[in-house]
Amino acid sequence: MSDQMQKIVLASRPTGAPTSENFRLETDAIPQPGEGEVLVKVHYMSLDPYMRGRMDDAKSYAAPVPIGGTMEGGGVGEVIASNSDHFKPGDLAFGMFGWASHGIQPAKMLRKLDAGGMPITTALGVLGMPGFTGWHGLMEYGRPKAGETLVVAAATGPVGSMVGQLAKSLGLRTVGIAGGADKVKLAKETFGFDECLDHRAYVDAKALRAALKEACPKGIDIYFENVGGKVLEAVIPLMNPFGRIPVCGMIAWYNAGNLGSGADAPMPAPAIWRNVLVNFLSVNGFIISNHWDRFPEFLQDAAPKVISGDIKVVEDIAEGLENAPDAFMGLLQGKNVGKQIVKVA
Amino acid sequence: MSDQMQKIVLASRPTGAPTSENFRLETDAIPQPGEGEVLVKVHYMSLDPYMRGRMDDAKSYAAPVPIGGTMEGGGVGEVIASNSDHFKPGDLAFGMFGWASHGIQPAKMLRKLDAGGMPITTALGVLGMPGFTGWHGLMEYGRPKAGETLVVAAATGPVGSMVGQLAKSLGLRTVGIAGGADKVKLAKETFGFDECLDHRAYVDAKALRAALKEACPKGIDIYFENVGGKVLEAVIPLMNPFGRIPVCGMIAWYNAGNLGSGADAPMPAPAIWRNVLVNFLSVNGFIISNHWDRFPEFLQDAAPKVISGDIKVVEDIAEGLENAPDAFMGLLQGKNVGKQIVKVA
Repeated sequence: MSDQMQKIVLASRPTGAPTSENFRLETDAIPQPGEGEVLVKVHYMSLDPYMRGRMDDAKSYAAPVPIGGTMEGGGVGEVIASNSDHFKPGDLAFGMFGWASHGIQPAKMLRKLDAGGMPITTALGVLGMPGFTGWHGLMEYGRPKAGETLVVAAATGPVGSMVGQLAKSLGLRTVGIAGGADKVKLAKETFGFDECLDHRAYVDAKALRAALKEACPKGIDIYFENVGGKVLEAVIPLMNPFGRIPVCGMIAWYNAGNLGSGADAPMPAPAIWRNVLVNFLSVNGFIISNHWDRFPEFLQDAAPKVISGDIKVVEDIAEGLENAPDAFMGLLQGKNVGKQIVKVA
Repeated sequence: MSDQMQKIVLASRPTGAPTSENFRLETDAIPQPGEGEVLVKVHYMSLDPYMRGRMDDAKSYAAPVPIGGTMEGGGVGEVIASNSDHFKPGDLAFGMFGWASHGIQPAKMLRKLDAGGMPITTALGVLGMPGFTGWHGLMEYGRPKAGETLVVAAATGPVGSMVGQLAKSLGLRTVGIAGGADKVKLAKETFGFDECLDHRAYVDAKALRAALKEACPKGIDIYFENVGGKVLEAVIPLMNPFGRIPVCGMIAWYNAGNLGSGADAPMPAPAIWRNVLVNFLSVNGFIISNHWDRFPEFLQDAAPKVISGDIKVVEDIAEGLENAPDAFMGLLQGKNVGKQIVKVA
């Protein structure tokens, strides 16, 4: 076993969309675990849109990655050294190891994975943070009722596909939005959406709104917000009275810098605010890391459905840590199909 | 008793701020009540910001007043004829009689007033729709907790003053916003706000924000939204994580036509949306007419506090139905001090 590890650090902060110059692959000595700590060799790591936010130094719910610091992220792998009674070499674990081939964490920050069940990659997607985000947001803030209509964008992503499949199983009409014909097909045929629109087929929010109006003849009761931008602008005037909007992301605006230029977001605030008022909307922002106390409840509900195949799993696996930046830039452009993962080793 | 009545009708729809040409005083025969109906001679009528919305024909939660139709509104007065067992001449009642000297309503649409208690004008303000709006919005969507900080604009109006006084009694720091030194004094000395800012003293949202930041050293947990515009823009970045924003109005934008020009609302949607996400805000639009089932609960809680003087009452009473349009235009400009009422007879 080599005593060297690889990691990807933030070389500089992006202006707008990240480029390869913003990342740097470095080699370092594998650290030794201290008291109560565990060393893990990472097999797979997760790429998620929230990581774009960590590259900026704007005030947010989490501290930015410092220049020269390892990019943040979750991964799954095998314990190779342990100073904790809770883990032994060979155990499989999930933890926040960053974009790296190896990582050290206190044992209490790790989640042991059951090797007998599903592929460990599911701990990064459908049964990990993204799936939990969809489940919690829909159930807690979406308050779904049979017969209602739900709209979610990034419909084939790990959050959107969870939201759509759960809502469908609860008797809602589900309308997805995705980029490209392949994803539209995937949304309908694999994830069971009643309808799915290709946002690239509509020149602006107005055109998308007209198509959504046809796809949602009874209006929209729940808009699960994970993209912002054109989709938000199209959806807002179609919301039904007493509609709910859980807000967990706005990937369309992640590259917009201060988000205040309005250049890619022509809708002014009053147009949203007026709809919140006149349609009695309930809008709730949330970040899943405030809600880990409900994770066991989520797993208990969702894991059997994944095992039975009622909830489908689609993953997009890039090969090699050195390719993580490219895969991440692709994720922000919607190039991935399903949950984006990197096979590290 | 004359058999003639007076009413004010919508002569034309305003573009921007209403002018006197948009209203017309008309004389008509007093109608006779049909089966189950009651005829009321109006003593006082209410003027409220929501009436501005009824003058437009934009889609909203309520139908617009038709051209030539009587302006909508609530009033209190004396029953002068009744075809219902529930009311007899001489009874005092609240109902939606419009801007008119007399009105007919089905008995079930009227609320009988207890003449032994407070002045009947309180049924239009502190113990009527505006007070109930403040109470319900604060308790249901604001979820106030002792030690938190609340901000409300139009702090000396019937909604804002109810919100501020209730919040103060629950142990919150209360910061009002009002227009002019007299209202600031009233907010602090009569309604007990810990601090009150004169929005006219600040050239823009940024300047107002700086002052609010000083007035709210621990940030803002509840922003009770009844104005929109500059105040909203100033407040949004100061919201604490898990903050709540009940939205019951946006008077600053009522004159803005389609509300989409952005001319008086430079904040683009993403700036609000981003804060909803990163601070996990809960934003709830509501209109009090969906919640009348809780009105008895409100009266039970608030009426004793009004009688005891714990909740203060300030009313601004214009004389004569013919002066209602002027008083209403003044209300939209913030010229009134306290709840705006018109003494009709």
